[in-house]
Amino acid sequence: MKLAERLLDGDRRACARLISMVENNDKEAIEIIKELYKHTGNAHVIGITGPPGGGKSTLTDKLAKALRKENKKVGIIAVDPTSPFTGGSILGDRVRMSDLALDSGVFIRSMGTRGHLGGLSKATQGAVKVLDIFGCDYIFIETVGVGQSEVDIVKTADTVVLIMVPGLGDDIQAIKAGTMEIGDIFAVNKSDLFGAPKTATEIKMMLDMNPNMERKPPVLQVIATKNEGMDNLVDEIKKHMSYMQEANKLQKRRESNAKTEIIKLAEEEIISLILRKNETMGLLDDIAKGVAMREIDPYSARDKILDSIKDITI
Amino acid sequence: MKLAERLLDGDRRACARLISMVENNDKEAIEIIKELYKHTGNAHVIGITGPPGGGKSTLTDKLAKALRKENKKVGIIAVDPTSPFTGGSILGDRVRMSDLALDSGVFIRSMGTRGHLGGLSKATQGAVKVLDIFGCDYIFIETVGVGQSEVDIVKTADTVVLIMVPGLGDDIQAIKAGTMEIGDIFAVNKSDLFGAPKTATEIKMMLDMNPNMERKPPVLQVIATKNEGMDNLVDEIKKHMSYMQEANKLQKRRESNAKTEIIKLAEEEIISLILRKNETMGLLDDIAKGVAMREIDPYSARDKILDSIKDITI
Repeated sequence: MKLAERLLDGDRRACARLISMVENNDKEAIEIIKELYKHTGNAHVIGITGPPGGGKSTLTDKLAKALRKENKKVGIIAVDPTSPFTGGSILGDRVRMSDLALDSGVFIRSMGTRGHLGGLSKATQGAVKVLDIFGCDYIFIETVGVGQSEVDIVKTADTVVLIMVPGLGDDIQAIKAGTMEIGDIFAVNKSDLFGAPKTATEIKMMLDMNPNMERKPPVLQVIATKNEGMDNLVDEIKKHMSYMQEANKLQKRRESNAKTEIIKLAEEEIISLILRKNETMGLLDDIAKGVAMREIDPYSARDKILDSIKDITI
Repeated sequence: MKLAERLLDGDRRACARLISMVENNDKEAIEIIKELYKHTGNAHVIGITGPPGGGKSTLTDKLAKALRKENKKVGIIAVDPTSPFTGGSILGDRVRMSDLALDSGVFIRSMGTRGHLGGLSKATQGAVKVLDIFGCDYIFIETVGVGQSEVDIVKTADTVVLIMVPGLGDDIQAIKAGTMEIGDIFAVNKSDLFGAPKTATEIKMMLDMNPNMERKPPVLQVIATKNEGMDNLVDEIKKHMSYMQEANKLQKRRESNAKTEIIKLAEEEIISLILRKNETMGLLDDIAKGVAMREIDPYSARDKILDSIKDITI
């Protein structure tokens, strides 16, 4: 059976193989996704992010387990753009610790940086499509690190859960503008720690200050390690999806995400075009030499490069 | 007097203003840099990076002070792509703590994220050019954070100093492949801490394992807070520049950096072209709608967008 059919059929090994191919920017994988794209859109994609030490992976595990009780098929993508100075050990722990890996109804995949952050975002979005075709009802995109790039990746989900922890205290105001806005649901994890209600109140107050919100995101207190409040969180995640569908917002959000994705894909294609053209022409090398010699400035150099690709078939 | 002339004349306020304009992607600033680009290339650009807690900003301060004793004009760009979850407090400290800010022969500028990481890299490279025209003999690009994007920014320097600290111990092996390779000089800072010689030895051993190195980077032990070993480090920085010039490597490195910069600029221009075109045509909106409805896949959507800009003037 062909890889495409096996994936549609829910074959785990085909799924794993296709995600690897997507990570390697394999052309056959892209063709398969193109062919099967009409089978996507059924999964509820949930982004999970928050500050370091928030217990994101434990919480994701518990959510997955709660959904497994309903016999839902679950995919988890752990996104980890490894710091250049710490290696990938965190990610290793993530995979080792999860007993979910033994559950055939759950597909877990870790995504590290492949040279480039843009590449990580692309690989993640490709993996979401593969898991969607594979038949997942729910797909979690969980960030291990917490940089801007991860926030951008999580934004591509249908529902974004922002995990907070008590003791963040006054620092909530230090959370970068634009980050709070991506949260559809707030979960104050480790709520057995001192200060949890205060943190929850502070989040609510911050949300109240935003007059442009059509829907007030719920703020929950949970303890993922003790499985407390997780059913509640699952309910809120489902409620958010219903809201999005009823208010016709799901379509809007997916359109906006599609737009971002198309632009990124176009960007990448054009760059590869410039590099291919350069290989045959040596133009870029010559111009770069001129820039280094201060014979031409980089901005005029850019214009020359753009001129050079104007008349070739894209 | 015009802004361009004032900058060439070494006017600090003109310099500050132009860097701000560059950060805001101002067209007039680009025109000024184009006009004055032939006056760049004289500064020795030094990148400083390393793991968190390495004492990067203290070390940069001491290096700047050592160079000030020789009456050199120094620029410092502190690059801080603020984490979405921690705000910009580190950067504030950086600026407050530095008494260098009072020295008229030193120009310090902090660069935070402006919405986009690509933007940060571009703003930093623009600022380097402005400081070069301004007449700086040395320009430090110091990273506050330590993500992959910062490493990429630091790579654009003529000389890269990687700061390490004792106690990193076995973790040196956890440093991401490709990161060690960017170091032209290694400085083990805080060398009064236990384990400093061991760390230095480990770095040397790792460097020995790389057979492709034409020049073995020196590994120094320093204590920036006590100003110990800093003259040595300054010497090594200068020696590296001499080596680069004599071996004709400076030109090569600057060519390669120019190439990366030109490609990024072209990328950005093309995206802005796609967005401008979209405004008048609504094409991107329609196609994104189609993708969200699963009527067309994102890869075919990309091809349509690329087709649409083929015949317009870039």
